[in-house]
Parts: sequence; structure tokens; C-alpha cells
Amino acid sequence: MYIPTLSDMFEAHQRIKPHIHRTPVLTSTFIDTLVGANLFFKCENLQKAGAFKARGASNAVFGLSEEQAARGVATHSSGNHGTCLSYAAGRRGIPCTVVMPRTAPQAKKDAVRGYGGQVVECEPSTSSREAVFAEVVAETGAEFVHPYNDSRVIAGQATCSKELIEQVDDLDAVIAPIGGGGMVSGTCLTLTNLAPRVKIYAAEPEQADDAYRSFKGGHIIADDAPNTVADGLKVPLKELTWHFVKNNVSDILTASETDIIDAMKLIWKRMKIVMEPSSAVPLAAILKNKHLFSGKRIGIIVTGGNVDLDTLPWQ
Amino acid sequence: MYIPTLSDMFEAHQRIKPHIHRTPVLTSTFIDTLVGANLFFKCENLQKAGAFKARGASNAVFGLSEEQAARGVATHSSGNHGTCLSYAAGRRGIPCTVVMPRTAPQAKKDAVRGYGGQVVECEPSTSSREAVFAEVVAETGAEFVHPYNDSRVIAGQATCSKELIEQVDDLDAVIAPIGGGGMVSGTCLTLTNLAPRVKIYAAEPEQADDAYRSFKGGHIIADDAPNTVADGLKVPLKELTWHFVKNNVSDILTASETDIIDAMKLIWKRMKIVMEPSSAVPLAAILKNKHLFSGKRIGIIVTGGNVDLDTLPWQ
Repeated sequence: MYIPTLSDMFEAHQRIKPHIHRTPVLTSTFIDTLVGANLFFKCENLQKAGAFKARGASNAVFGLSEEQAARGVATHSSGNHGTCLSYAAGRRGIPCTVVMPRTAPQAKKDAVRGYGGQVVECEPSTSSREAVFAEVVAETGAEFVHPYNDSRVIAGQATCSKELIEQVDDLDAVIAPIGGGGMVSGTCLTLTNLAPRVKIYAAEPEQADDAYRSFKGGHIIADDAPNTVADGLKVPLKELTWHFVKNNVSDILTASETDIIDAMKLIWKRMKIVMEPSSAVPLAAILKNKHLFSGKRIGIIVTGGNVDLDTLPWQ
Repeated sequence: MYIPTLSDMFEAHQRIKPHIHRTPVLTSTFIDTLVGANLFFKCENLQKAGAFKARGASNAVFGLSEEQAARGVATHSSGNHGTCLSYAAGRRGIPCTVVMPRTAPQAKKDAVRGYGGQVVECEPSTSSREAVFAEVVAETGAEFVHPYNDSRVIAGQATCSKELIEQVDDLDAVIAPIGGGGMVSGTCLTLTNLAPRVKIYAAEPEQADDAYRSFKGGHIIADDAPNTVADGLKVPLKELTWHFVKNNVSDILTASETDIIDAMKLIWKRMKIVMEPSSAVPLAAILKNKHLFSGKRIGIIVTGGNVDLDTLPWQ
């Protein structure tokens, strides 16, 4: 297991700069007053392909040798990583294959194809996914880019917090949603080195609280078929992300489904940005734990904005 | 009739800077490809109180003498101007009264009150509104700030295009939605002086095309009870805004209700921003008139983001 370093993060930022947005940081006086703190929303929902995962995927893709690149990249993901890997591969002009359950939403398949990637369907089971994915790699020789348990991906995600501390002075804490832990790991990598005074929190749905239970239990615990509106956060930690979570995170806070949906709607309404349920988990957790954040300067990573506008969760 | 000048705009910008956001300019590769042009979205939906009208309202409020200010401000508006005037008055700590039909949406009344303003209800007719408004002014001595037919308001709105040309080089054209014409007039004021090469377009719903018909007819024509999803654009031109429209606008383009809703959903989906139907009219018009914009660099004013998230027009 190779743990990415600060210089990997700096190299990643140089490498991906032409392919990503330096996303804006937005604020809301209304929400600040509600919380009693100063919140700075780092808007990765406005990132290329609509999610922070464009950073990690671009770092992996543009770090490949010419020879590797010619064989393309592959992953299994029915979420933003698949879309973002397709985006990055499209920018480099190399093949990308994404293995996805045939039951995945049509919009997710279309998003991968929209950037030029190929979707290969499997049955909705782990064994089918692994078998189909192995076949794809055997046939193409494509480079596997894991959604988060990959040091290139974590170094890419780590560039987000670098920008954030350049954009906002004197943060007391940064909070990000946690699923597999790629963004949280990247945040740890950057902040423990460049801004060690800044506390790092992770926020998770109560109904998919495997990272919370892992953190409290001292070892990785995977949820059995979690169900939450924050569908980007259902996946478990893996060894690389567990390393960062275990060593660098101050605490993991959880939020109920109702709190997540209320926080999501509040942000849409007051801040006028479209973001995923997953991205609302940090504000939901802050509103439930105001005492931790009162009077402080808090960075919040808004992780993505790819939602189905026809089925919003408050309707 | 006092026509505001470029120095009024510069003074306005100095005056209102502490009270407004310098809103970001966002872009979308996907939409650029669709149109065949480079579009730069000036995001006034991310403005204080959710609309560009915070600029004009702040200029009017902070330009008052202490004596005038003590008596407060008043307007009639069931839209963003009422909310934004209440916002600006709240920042200065002076009274604000907004006359609104009792049938106006509860959310609009709440928005005015949320910033500290007082709502006075009238019957939903012009005669009742005028009578009630006259009473309010007689009682309070408040300063009337018209939503758009007011040189202080136009000078305030004009600061938006000043920022835009500082943020984006070499624009070929700027397009904004037109209702009463306050934003379009401000755009004319700034661009004809500071960037005379930039063409100015206005965009209007087909179903509320009074500005279009006025422009073609050479005199102000008011619609009789127009009905459009772009409810911020139902009001007619007045003499001050007509002056700018008549003299400085290259053309007025119209869009159907379906085109407006499709453009709105496209922007939400691809750009991840919440914006009003009114703000989608320019993109709808551009998509219908690609030949005018092909290969060009186009600024688009996204005028506001105050929508009811429970009743979206595509549902």
C-alpha cells in the first residue's frame, strides 16, 4: 500500500489544472446566522462533470505513460467516479470502460457515454461485477482506477483543500461527506501538512454509518446494504482511506434522512446551487452539533451536483 | 426625467460594494458546444437576496441623506425588487414598506419580512395598489423607490456589466432578460460608454412580448395581463428604460414557454445553479437564434434565483 504524500498532491495539482475548474467558495449570511458560525462552501458541484471526482480521475488518467494510456482505463462505479473517469479519459482521448449494474439509472449510463466512455453492464451483484470487470481488463489491458482506494485518486482529491485554504484564511475546521473516504483522505493529506491547526470532520448518513462505526470501533466495518438518499455515500472504507480516517479525522458526525433532505433544500433555497443529497450531509451534521462549530470558521466541501431534477427528495 | 450617467454608475459601485457580492461568472463546455459559441453566465442569482435588484435597491437606499433615510423607503412590488429593497433598508437599519396584493404568494411576503421590511396588502388591482401606496407615503414620508423607472436603480443595475467586462475579456455581445427594462438599461449605460463595440440584446417571453412590440413599433406598448412562467418579466417599459432600449439595444429576441422551461432545466442540470424562469429566457433565445451568436463571446445576465422549489415548472 503506497500512501500518497504532499508532493504527490502538488504534482497532481500541476497535472490536472488544465482539466479542472478552480471552483468558487460561496457563503450565505442566512445560514451563518442560523448556525452561529462562518461557513465557506467549496463548490465542487460546479466542478467539471459535476463532482470533485474529476480531480482524482484526471490525476490518474494524465499520470499514465503513453503506453499505459493507449490501453485505456477502466472502473466499476454507478456514480460520479464513472462519469468523471470518462470525462478525464475523453480529455486525453483514450478509451474508458465503466462496468455498471444493468439496473443502474439510465441517466448514469448516459453520463458516462456523454463523455465518450463505454458502459459494460453486469448483473447487480458483487460476483457478477467482479467477473465482468476481470474480463474487461483481460481483454483490453486497461488500467484500473478505483473510485477511492487509489493513491493517485486521493492525491487528486487532495487538491481541493489546497485551493480552499488559498481561498479562505484562518479556517478552524473543514468538514466533508464520507462514503469510501476519498475526499476525506485527500483533505487529511493536504491539511495535516499545510494547515495542521485545522480540524477535519467527516459527515455521514445515520442510515449508512459504516465509517462512523469503523472510527469508533477501531477497524473497518462495512455496512450490509445501506439505504440512504445520499446514494454517493453507501460504499465502505478501504485500507488506504482507513489509514487517513483513523489517523487524521477529529470526529465523524451523522445525520438523519430528514435532516439531510432539509439541509439540501435549505442550501438550494438560500444559496441557489444544485447539489446532491450527499453534499448536504455536512450542513445537516453541523446544524445538529452547533456547539462544536459556534463562532468558528468552517470549510464545507460540496462534493457534487449530479441529481435527477425530475425526482427531488422533498417531493 | 434624469438620465443616469457613467459617473452615476461609478458612484453607485463605490457606494454599494460593501453590500453586494461581486458575483462569479460561470461557463459550461456542454452548453458552449450546443450553441457553438462561448457563453459567460454572470450569476446574479448568487447575489445578495438572490437577485441583481440588490444592486439598484442598495444604491437608492445608501444614497439617501440621513434625513430622508430616517423616514424610510417604500415600493410596490410582489417580486425581487420588494425583497431587495427590504434587504438594503435592513442593512442601513431604516424602515421599508412594500405594498403587495393580498393574493401574492406567501413566500414573497415572507421574503420581505425576513429582511425586516413591512408588507402592506392591497387588493389585486392597479387602483387599489395606487391608493394604498399613496396612503403609505402620506403617513410615513417614505422615499419611493420604483422597481426600474428610477435613475438611482438603473445606475445600480449598471454595476453588473462593469464587473462582467472586468471579469471577461473581448465580449462580442451581452444579453439580458427584459421586463421593465432596469437591467437592460443599466447594461446599456455601462457598455455604450465603456465597451461600445459590445452588442446589447434583450430576451423576452413570447407571451409577454411588450418590449419586443414596443421596440419594433417605436413607442411604448404595454401588454394587457400577460401570462408567462417568467413572472419577473410581466411589467411594461417606462419612459426611462424606454430611452435606453430605444437608443442602445441591437435587438429583442423572444422565446416560447416550452423553450424557456427547457433552457431553465438545461442550466440547472449542466451548470448546477438554481435560477428563475426569467433568467433562462436569454439562453432560450440564443438557442433559437444560433446564427446570431455562432463563434462569438457572449455574456448572459442570470438575473435571479428566487424560485419555489416545491413547484418547479417541468413537473
